[in-house]
Parts: sequence; structure tokens; C-alpha cells
Amino acid sequence: MTEKNATPVTVIGLGSMGRALAEAFIKAGHPTTVWNRTAAKAAPLVAMGAEHAEAIEDAVAASPLIITCLTSFDDTRSALLPATTSLRGRALVTLNSGSPAGARETAAWAICHGARSLAGAVKNVPSAVGLPDTLLYYSGDKTVFDEFETALKVLGGDTVHLGDESDLAALYEMAVGAMLLPALVGFFQGAAAVQARGLEAASMVRFAGKWLDMITSLLPTYAEEIDSGDYTDAASSVNLFLAGEAHDADLARETGVDTAWLAPLYELVRRAAEAGHGDHSISALTEVLRKPARQS
Amino acid sequence: MTEKNATPVTVIGLGSMGRALAEAFIKAGHPTTVWNRTAAKAAPLVAMGAEHAEAIEDAVAASPLIITCLTSFDDTRSALLPATTSLRGRALVTLNSGSPAGARETAAWAICHGARSLAGAVKNVPSAVGLPDTLLYYSGDKTVFDEFETALKVLGGDTVHLGDESDLAALYEMAVGAMLLPALVGFFQGAAAVQARGLEAASMVRFAGKWLDMITSLLPTYAEEIDSGDYTDAASSVNLFLAGEAHDADLARETGVDTAWLAPLYELVRRAAEAGHGDHSISALTEVLRKPARQS
Repeated sequence: MTEKNATPVTVIGLGSMGRALAEAFIKAGHPTTVWNRTAAKAAPLVAMGAEHAEAIEDAVAASPLIITCLTSFDDTRSALLPATTSLRGRALVTLNSGSPAGARETAAWAICHGARSLAGAVKNVPSAVGLPDTLLYYSGDKTVFDEFETALKVLGGDTVHLGDESDLAALYEMAVGAMLLPALVGFFQGAAAVQARGLEAASMVRFAGKWLDMITSLLPTYAEEIDSGDYTDAASSVNLFLAGEAHDADLARETGVDTAWLAPLYELVRRAAEAGHGDHSISALTEVLRKPARQS
Repeated sequence: MTEKNATPVTVIGLGSMGRALAEAFIKAGHPTTVWNRTAAKAAPLVAMGAEHAEAIEDAVAASPLIITCLTSFDDTRSALLPATTSLRGRALVTLNSGSPAGARETAAWAICHGARSLAGAVKNVPSAVGLPDTLLYYSGDKTVFDEFETALKVLGGDTVHLGDESDLAALYEMAVGAMLLPALVGFFQGAAAVQARGLEAASMVRFAGKWLDMITSLLPTYAEEIDSGDYTDAASSVNLFLAGEAHDADLARETGVDTAWLAPLYELVRRAAEAGHGDHSISALTEVLRKPARQS
């Protein structure tokens, strides 16, 4: 059942995240139109009350607010190509992974077709869509954010506009996202080590969660060190981490787990030590990771 | 001022963590004796009420509970070597990083000198010592844990005995600790990317913290997949992560940040895909990390 005054919304792209977005709008009473290249994916949403548009032109024409959740910026522009005439005067909100350059290109493309746009990122899993604490951030045309903020908050209560520049959300998504795969591989390595001893991976979940909380508690200090460039007040030094390499080698030897992926990490630690950061905070690794920008 | 009935405690090794441990005991009213190879480090603790023992034999003889916080198991045994006669009948609790093998060796060494022992790990930074939520885990002689639990809880309210085997704490410390350096380097890379755009690293701290919370929320499911060996119900597939490699390359190109350390991580992802896990959960990487155990 749709609510009076709730903004009609179109959701384009019904992968697991797109479906979660559409469901949240339907549940919140927004008249919701959906489109997907493979139309079958729309069926469960139609059963919940969504309209399914066969043609993407009709999907775009149905609502003032168009949310896309496709694989990339390239996919987004090419899916919308038959619908560019309908785009005029509407607000396009892209929610996909991609580079800052892709976000800029897509924002310019939208303007060229008479649309205003925001590029955003859902910083969570599909099952978290719609929860009060779920973070989504957007950047680009602030008038879109202000006009549709109520609708956007349906997707997550922690909704942020990072700035007018269209590529800021992509930049932050990449910057923040860089912790995911490395942290997970660390967990999987730990799980393999615990299992090699005949214990369950589940037995380390509570400890790993507390460990991530501890890491979270360190980030403000590290950011301050990185922003000031003053790494001298080291709670955990580069040399301390360097000494840890031997422990990882022990773990590999004792459990048979492959720790080869850690070698380039210790190489960074070693380069930091060689650059004179041995007694400095581990956050001095940022200096080693920074390279003179190459031409893109 | 010491409390009546509070167990006398000796803390050996006064680095930043050892000092934090000693301070917590002093504040909780335990008669506290301290020893350090460089005696000067004892001065601030003596000012707070600690006894300083010049000779390690006297430090060990002063208390039924001896806590060591030295760099390694080797260092711990060699520091205690002049005090082995005093060790007889006492409880030795080692709080240092080290391998499971080192923990086993040290437990056997303690038994050989007539002492009971626990090997533990402080899973936090020195400033967290003594807080109700701070996790410390121990393994080894349960009678030591039971007899001195009240004293051990002074160091952190979340105090756990993992089991009788002396090396379990070292195993878990390594398994859980494996996330630290990779997650931090991910954060530092993100910080360098954000700074390359002229923004402050501090601006990503809140987002990074929520991202780590999100990662924490995924761990129970991943552990379940790893324990069951059933990776087929994938929320985030191996192929999805493989597609992310292009985004990291974009980030490197656009911000000039060095992402070379990620290459072996994607190599693991690729190996998992090649082994038939492409559509499986990313936790299937555990299978690739597991190798037949080599002779140690």
C-alpha cells in the first residue's frame, strides 16, 4: 500500500542489493517502479506491490527519482541509453561501485541529458538496507539530496552528503573499502590455523569481533598522525610490527597455513623502517604507500 | 594503599604494556613488586606504591603470582633463569606474543622448575588495561586461573580461560591477530588516497569504523561456512571480489597510491575461482590458504 505524498521511485537493476533497495521503498509506501534486464527478477517485487516496467524508458518516465544499482558506471550509462529523453528533469541516483573518474563521467553525462544526479554508495550488505544505523553516502548535486532526503533515508538512517563534487562518494567508498579483503583474508587465515588444530572457526568469532573493535579505537589517533605528518608518539611502532613477521612465520610452520600473501605487507613495513620510521607509529606506512601521482 | 586479602603480585618486564599491568594492580590495592632489566622504568610505579626488586630472584620470591610481560618466550625464560629456585610453588603467568610451540616449551620449563603456569594474551592496547570490556585470554593450568581469577580480572573484565593446553592462547592470539596489519594497511592506503585529493584522513575515520562494524557482522556467517565446508550460499562471491580488482587499479591510477601489496590477495581470490569457487562465498578462500602441514 502506498503512502500519500511518498515520492514515486524507480529502481533499475535488481541484483541482491537492488532488490533490497526496492523492497525498502515498497515497505515504506513509496510507489515503486522496477526494471531489470532479466525481467523475471522483478516478479517477487511485483508481488509486494511494485510496478514492473518492460521498457527502461517507461521505468525512467514513471518517477521523479531514479535509483540505479548496476555493476558499474559504464553499465549504468549503457542501460539508460534508450531512456535519455525521459531522463530530462529527473534526479538520477547511482548506487554502484566504481572509480572517481567513472562518477565524474556519469555526472557529466546526466547533466548533458538534462538530469540532476547524485552518486552514492551503500556501505553495507543488502540485509542491512533500511536499518536506522545503515550508512549510505552520496556526493554531487546537493539540491537532489535536499529534495529527496526523506526518500533516501528509507534506505538507511545514516545518510550523508559528502559534498558537491560528484566523485567524493566513489573516492570514500574505495578508501574505506580497502580494508575489506585484507581484513577478511586475515580472518580466513586465522580460521585455517584454528581448524588445523581441530578447533572450530566459530570459536574465534567473538575474539575477532573484539579485535576489530580495538582496531576501530586506534583509527582516530592514526588519522591524526597521518594528517599532522607527526609519527613520533608511537603507541605501536614500525619496528614492533617488523618483529611480528617472525610470529607469522611460526604460525605458517606450525599450522601449515599459507602466509605468503603477507610478504608484501612486511615489505612495506621494512621500507618504512629503512626510511627512518622504525621507532615511529605504524601509521607512518602511509608515507611509503604514497607515491608521486602518475598520469591517468 | 594495599587492600587486605589482595593477592601480592609481581610484574616482570616494564615496557608500556607491563607498566599498564603493574599500574592496574597497584590501583586495585594489590601489593605489587616490579622488576625490569633497566631499573629506571620502575621509578614511576614505585612512586605509586610498588616495591622495586633489584634482583629478579627477590621479585619472584615476593609474590605467589608472577606476571611476565617480556618480548618473547625465549626472553621470558632467560630473564627468569637466575630465579628458578624461587619459582618453585608459584604461579607464572606469561603475557607476551609468541608461537604455540614457544608457549608449550615455556609451560614445560615452568613445570620442570616446580611452578604452575598460564600463558595469556592481552588483546588490546596498554590504555585499555583494567577496563571492564577489555579481553584477556589464558590457557594452561586451570587451577592457576581459578585460584587467581580475581587478580587476573583486575587487568580486564573480559577474562577467559580457553583450555588446559598451554598453547591455545598463543594459537588464538596469532589467528585473531592476523587481521591487524592487513586491515591497518588498508586504512593507511585509504588515508593516502583521501589525502591525494586534498582531504583529511580524519574525514574517513567514522566511515572506516562503521565499515569494520559491518565486517564484524559478517564473521559469524563466514565461520559457519568455513566450519561446514559449504560455501554455496554466497552473500558476496569470490567472483564479486575478483571484479573489485579493477577498482583497486583505478584507485591506484587516480590517486597515485601504491596498491601493489594487494596483488597476492587477488592471486588468492583468483586461485579460489580457478578451484571452482567462483560463485561461492568469499570465505572459500580459507580452502586455498590451507596447505598440507609441513614438518616443523
